[in-house]
Amino acid sequence: MFILGLDEFLTRALNEDIGTGDITTMCCISPAAVSKGAFKAKEAGIICGMEILKRVFALLDATVCVNPIISDGDYVEMGAVIAEISGKSQSILSGERVALNIIQRLSGIATRTHEAVSQISGTKAVIADTRKTTPGLRVLEKYAVKVGGGSNHRFNLSDGILIKDNHIKAAGGIKNAIEAVRRTAPHTLKIEVETETAEQIEEALEARADIIMLDNMTIAEMAAAVERINGRALVEASGNMGEKNLREVAETGVDIISIGALTHTVKSLDISLKFFE
Amino acid sequence: MFILGLDEFLTRALNEDIGTGDITTMCCISPAAVSKGAFKAKEAGIICGMEILKRVFALLDATVCVNPIISDGDYVEMGAVIAEISGKSQSILSGERVALNIIQRLSGIATRTHEAVSQISGTKAVIADTRKTTPGLRVLEKYAVKVGGGSNHRFNLSDGILIKDNHIKAAGGIKNAIEAVRRTAPHTLKIEVETETAEQIEEALEARADIIMLDNMTIAEMAAAVERINGRALVEASGNMGEKNLREVAETGVDIISIGALTHTVKSLDISLKFFE
Amino acid sequence: MFILGLDEFLTRALNEDIGTGDITTMCCISPAAVSKGAFKAKEAGIICGMEILKRVFALLDATVCVNPIISDGDYVEMGAVIAEISGKSQSILSGERVALNIIQRLSGIATRTHEAVSQISGTKAVIADTRKTTPGLRVLEKYAVKVGGGSNHRFNLSDGILIKDNHIKAAGGIKNAIEAVRRTAPHTLKIEVETETAEQIEEALEARADIIMLDNMTIAEMAAAVERINGRALVEASGNMGEKNLREVAETGVDIISIGALTHTVKSLDISLKFFE
Amino acid sequence: MFILGLDEFLTRALNEDIGTGDITTMCCISPAAVSKGAFKAKEAGIICGMEILKRVFALLDATVCVNPIISDGDYVEMGAVIAEISGKSQSILSGERVALNIIQRLSGIATRTHEAVSQISGTKAVIADTRKTTPGLRVLEKYAVKVGGGSNHRFNLSDGILIKDNHIKAAGGIKNAIEAVRRTAPHTLKIEVETETAEQIEEALEARADIIMLDNMTIAEMAAAVERINGRALVEASGNMGEKNLREVAETGVDIISIGALTHTVKSLDISLKFFE
Amino acid sequence: MFILGLDEFLTRALNEDIGTGDITTMCCISPAAVSKGAFKAKEAGIICGMEILKRVFALLDATVCVNPIISDGDYVEMGAVIAEISGKSQSILSGERVALNIIQRLSGIATRTHEAVSQISGTKAVIADTRKTTPGLRVLEKYAVKVGGGSNHRFNLSDGILIKDNHIKAAGGIKNAIEAVRRTAPHTLKIEVETETAEQIEEALEARADIIMLDNMTIAEMAAAVERINGRALVEASGNMGEKNLREVAETGVDIISIGALTHTVKSLDISLKFFE
Amino acid sequence: MFILGLDEFLTRALNEDIGTGDITTMCCISPAAVSKGAFKAKEAGIICGMEILKRVFALLDATVCVNPIISDGDYVEMGAVIAEISGKSQSILSGERVALNIIQRLSGIATRTHEAVSQISGTKAVIADTRKTTPGLRVLEKYAVKVGGGSNHRFNLSDGILIKDNHIKAAGGIKNAIEAVRRTAPHTLKIEVETETAEQIEEALEARADIIMLDNMTIAEMAAAVERINGRALVEASGNMGEKNLREVAETGVDIISIGALTHTVKSLDISLKFFE
Repeated sequence: MFILGLDEFLTRALNEDIGTGDITTMCCISPAAVSKGAFKAKEAGIICGMEILKRVFALLDATVCVNPIISDGDYVEMGAVIAEISGKSQSILSGERVALNIIQRLSGIATRTHEAVSQISGTKAVIADTRKTTPGLRVLEKYAVKVGGGSNHRFNLSDGILIKDNHIKAAGGIKNAIEAVRRTAPHTLKIEVETETAEQIEEALEARADIIMLDNMTIAEMAAAVERINGRALVEASGNMGEKNLREVAETGVDIISIGALTHTVKSLDISLKFFE
Repeated sequence: MFILGLDEFLTRALNEDIGTGDITTMCCISPAAVSKGAFKAKEAGIICGMEILKRVFALLDATVCVNPIISDGDYVEMGAVIAEISGKSQSILSGERVALNIIQRLSGIATRTHEAVSQISGTKAVIADTRKTTPGLRVLEKYAVKVGGGSNHRFNLSDGILIKDNHIKAAGGIKNAIEAVRRTAPHTLKIEVETETAEQIEEALEARADIIMLDNMTIAEMAAAVERINGRALVEASGNMGEKNLREVAETGVDIISIGALTHTVKSLDISLKFFE
Repeated sequence: MFILGLDEFLTRALNEDIGTGDITTMCCISPAAVSKGAFKAKEAGIICGMEILKRVFALLDATVCVNPIISDGDYVEMGAVIAEISGKSQSILSGERVALNIIQRLSGIATRTHEAVSQISGTKAVIADTRKTTPGLRVLEKYAVKVGGGSNHRFNLSDGILIKDNHIKAAGGIKNAIEAVRRTAPHTLKIEVETETAEQIEEALEARADIIMLDNMTIAEMAAAVERINGRALVEASGNMGEKNLREVAETGVDIISIGALTHTVKSLDISLKFFE
Repeated sequence: MFILGLDEFLTRALNEDIGTGDITTMCCISPAAVSKGAFKAKEAGIICGMEILKRVFALLDATVCVNPIISDGDYVEMGAVIAEISGKSQSILSGERVALNIIQRLSGIATRTHEAVSQISGTKAVIADTRKTTPGLRVLEKYAVKVGGGSNHRFNLSDGILIKDNHIKAAGGIKNAIEAVRRTAPHTLKIEVETETAEQIEEALEARADIIMLDNMTIAEMAAAVERINGRALVEASGNMGEKNLREVAETGVDIISIGALTHTVKSLDISLKFFE
Repeated sequence: MFILGLDEFLTRALNEDIGTGDITTMCCISPAAVSKGAFKAKEAGIICGMEILKRVFALLDATVCVNPIISDGDYVEMGAVIAEISGKSQSILSGERVALNIIQRLSGIATRTHEAVSQISGTKAVIADTRKTTPGLRVLEKYAVKVGGGSNHRFNLSDGILIKDNHIKAAGGIKNAIEAVRRTAPHTLKIEVETETAEQIEEALEARADIIMLDNMTIAEMAAAVERINGRALVEASGNMGEKNLREVAETGVDIISIGALTHTVKSLDISLKFFE
Repeated sequence: MFILGLDEFLTRALNEDIGTGDITTMCCISPAAVSKGAFKAKEAGIICGMEILKRVFALLDATVCVNPIISDGDYVEMGAVIAEISGKSQSILSGERVALNIIQRLSGIATRTHEAVSQISGTKAVIADTRKTTPGLRVLEKYAVKVGGGSNHRFNLSDGILIKDNHIKAAGGIKNAIEAVRRTAPHTLKIEVETETAEQIEEALEARADIIMLDNMTIAEMAAAVERINGRALVEASGNMGEKNLREVAETGVDIISIGALTHTVKSLDISLKFFE
């Protein structure tokens, strides 16, 4: 996994947490002291972020040794050791919170994504994320979705075209919007359009949209839409999917189910670091 | 509210979301088009981030006008308009997601904090946050806790002293740790120590800790601890407080209840932007 | 035109050119002196960068007034005044070179693009750029291509999929590569593949590539390829197109002609600033 | 060669080209795959940038091995291998374009400089660059000029004094300008003045300019100027020198010929990377 | 010693001093040349900054070898060698000035602090620094104070509470200010208040300040204050302490003597680098 | 006065001093409160930094109004008001220390420079600074030297050539060094060489150095050197000049006296901010 900008992100996170210095640690632990300890999952789930865990300590003190026991995407039971760590006690203590804050969050996202993917297993649909991510963490959070078995929607406004309700209003209709985009956007991008009614779906089909998003429709509406579209465009179900029965949605025949809650409503997976006695 | 580093954070967030350009918007909306719209709460809660909402658009396009209808800390019902916006359609559309991602998250934190504070109203305890925040968003998330009626614990490792279990192990006991800190830390900081047993509480009292944290204790243990400490130190209850009956905890007489889940397990408050027809 | 990162780019450029201070100007011109002058095209061409010209001086000294006479995309004759400037002599002199270096380069690119577009007018093909841009200037240089009447290819490796010869070698063939991409890439992106032979074109068609690039083919080969592909994929001609007869290429029926030389081999348009006497 | 700021420049370039991730490569090449390949000159010229080539990949993936075959300043024939590379296929593919974009440009500049230097061999004149460089690349482009056998003029407005036409107008004449500069500028810098007429040359000589620039003069005017100056100042020929007969200019006896076109009108040297089968 | 932000600080310092390149060194020393030399104290004092000395050269050229002879906090006589250095002559010469500028300043601060600490040896008081540090160097300068035997006051406005005269005016009195702070500040911070009169001391005691600063009082006033406070708060003497008889101040019984001059009025310790013949 | 990089420097300084927030001010002063106050010189001296004072508050809160009473370079008596300030109390208090730390230091440098300049008035010599400045503050400190009536030596290693003792050792003598530099350095820079003996002066003259530095010579040696050089090069006296009788040095006839202590041994001028009652 190669992530551009990762070092800057982690450095900012370390600065944010350490401030002008880890007073407690510097005052009560000898610079020469060394410790060993283990990162343990305090609840079951999918782990994500092992490379990042290593990188946090590499940036802080290259002599700290982090030894991952499992790999990103592995499911672990409560109590499982996910990594061991050894090195200068001061460095481990100063980096602990940043490391945990990140892997807990990413593991929480991977775990939730995995649950969603499991619910629709056997259908042709895929679970996708959205742009409802935490500012500054998008690449990491979308990585966690992948690790959890999901698929990535566009990463930002420049690598995907999605004509939404406000665009449609401002552009004077779906047809106008799609035609304008086809004329001027890079030819490498598909054109997706958000629809709320059967009429809008027709308009999107006529304008030859590549992907049609069904926004906040009922199961019945989605099933009808899939039938009507009939393979002429990819079909994406969207809109509070986090609260829907995902299997029912998938069985309508949609290609993609995008769920904002994968990243906007996060429960961190509980992970701790304990020094051995 | 003055927040240092805010502009850099928002600029990074805008860069992250816009990338090399908002293709959809640039291709289907005229640069000359203007729109008006409203930010609406799609569920009830405490709103947080109105200044940030304004700042996002000020950075993107100073001619966009954001008019807040409510103030940070206000409780709103589902459907309430929280701000109006008008200006170039392109600018509003390009900044919408970043603005929403931030205020939804902060409002979610403020709302959850408010619920916790409400549960213990009438007791002397305060609800406090922890360092279990999202990397890069600590100052904002702690601001949301304040807006929700909570209190801030230390912001980082340099503005508060907290001797935790791993410190105690590495330093060779609570007494050693506290004495070392008192000898060398700035005199402006109180000394807090984490305890898990009655014996540790005694040791902390003997070493004259200013604040004693009761980590993962039962209600009965906390009550006994408060009685034993008897005003000689501030008492802070901690450890999965997000899943505890907070009123019971508060009624043991502790001074502070710190809850990591306020910021590590977040449910964004649903807020949307709709253009007027 | 909204360009994220522009201010940082211009600030770096100003720092690079001014260093620790514009000694000549500070030593021989009074801080109180004011001047008026004109930016003139010293050769005919398409002008690009008027907003950037304004922004350079806005960053350096907000009291300098830049008054554009023409708009981006306008063709001007040799000697035409493209903008007037007035304000503190020191500020104008200190910003002159940076401003000229940028608009000369962008105007050079727009002018060359315009020539290419003119050569194929009346055909259905479009002229597109590549990633062979100057490091740090990609968004600006691609903007200049648009201003010159061209079309943008992908901006970077994350907003377009292009399977090239080295990918094909490393992935074990076109079919393998396309199938792997279709399985794991965001569904919002089309899949483009580079081909050098008729066999590779067949393989790409079978694997249902969305776009087929014809790399370094002869006019006859391109014509045969277009006929064979027959609308099942977009067709892009590529490979030293800067030295080809573009009209001949366009008349083979390809959809896109991408030309690296638009940005990798640049002749700046000569523009000067002269103070009025 | 030590270049401050190089890592930041290359990191920005890699971010610019990779964006949120090299989708094609990540999707169709295994992270475990390794490749070997060669960078080849596809036309003859002077190569420049071998250390930078190594640094691009060192920043991206320290395990990639780049083995330069030639050194900066070497002349190579068409088809020559200039470096070999081996390592993870993903890393090589993700860094290829940035590496090529830089060394192609620098080699183009070195090649053109070398041609100019060759034209005046045997005369006492040197070929120098100007500040007409690409924003953000000045140190690199001036390095390429040196590698091509040229000499560097000032790097920015703070490390050289050059009183130009607009300064003269604003300062009220050459004499005023030179005297003001001599009074207040650091004593470590020579004073250069731009002249367009024989009268201005006289004025510059009287004010004891260290260097006199002859701007846009004919061969005859330059020869007369050199004779008149007669060693009392260095003499620099300037003004569209890229289109002049350089040998004629050099034979007038000028000391320096400065050519903006070395850096403002660039033809990249064609270099490619091919994986071995 | 771990210092976050150190690399950025040193990189900025190197950029500031090297600019676009160390012309003298590059022009007159061969890239292949190597040298050995020694850093010598040209006057007696406490040395501070040995890790920073190493880090400057590590950033500039990892092959340069710096071998510290003494440790931070050691007292050295005039003429003592404090470190040896060997490696590429160019790298050593380009980094010399930045390295010296930093360790001379820090050693000057450590030496002056040590003198102040020596003057009060045997009393219970400690010597502390203030926020009157050089912008950008606070963490380093406060480290030097520690190395010299002093104690650190707060590092910034967020890690300590100090209610000063202007706060008191704006808040409407000491009592109001302390109560407001106690209600809303993090519970981890002590409350310090600046007093100028006996009445203010009484008000501070009534409001239960944790630390009382005696600002610009006479020896007699300080003695009376210590007696009156009688252990109910820590007592800090402040106000032009750099010009006071510190032993007299300490013997009044104050706990802390804070001296702005430790960092705002600095005499660099003279240190030089000489190459061996 | 235009200073590139100033905003970044001040922003870093504000971040350094404010940290995560000015707790004292936020907790005890109402956001609505406004104050007026005055910056007063508490000792006599030359004031430097009025524009910077304004800029600090402009960056922090654009509504704060700073009204300078005097100009940079003015001499003020003890007690003089140098600027008035009004606006939000919170903003003034949060920016006070950074503003004072900067203008106190710059005014200290300007004052000391002015004293040195006064000592040699009537001679032809000028007082110059060195590169012994505070890392990160060079441009500001050299500005203060100018404001105090001094002259600037080179700003960094790229805008001046100075061959020092270690260069001479590494290059194999003065002659070798000067010839190498003349061959390869930009023609816009003079060549200065450091000498310690009469023999070295001869060697420098033979090699036609533009400037000869006399390092650590006695008054008699300097007088002899000036006589011997006899106008063939500028003469600069250097080496612990801060402790020398400057008038005696100047009367030897040297052109420049460079004094490291102007910036490496600084006594801040005492300036305070007091709110009006």
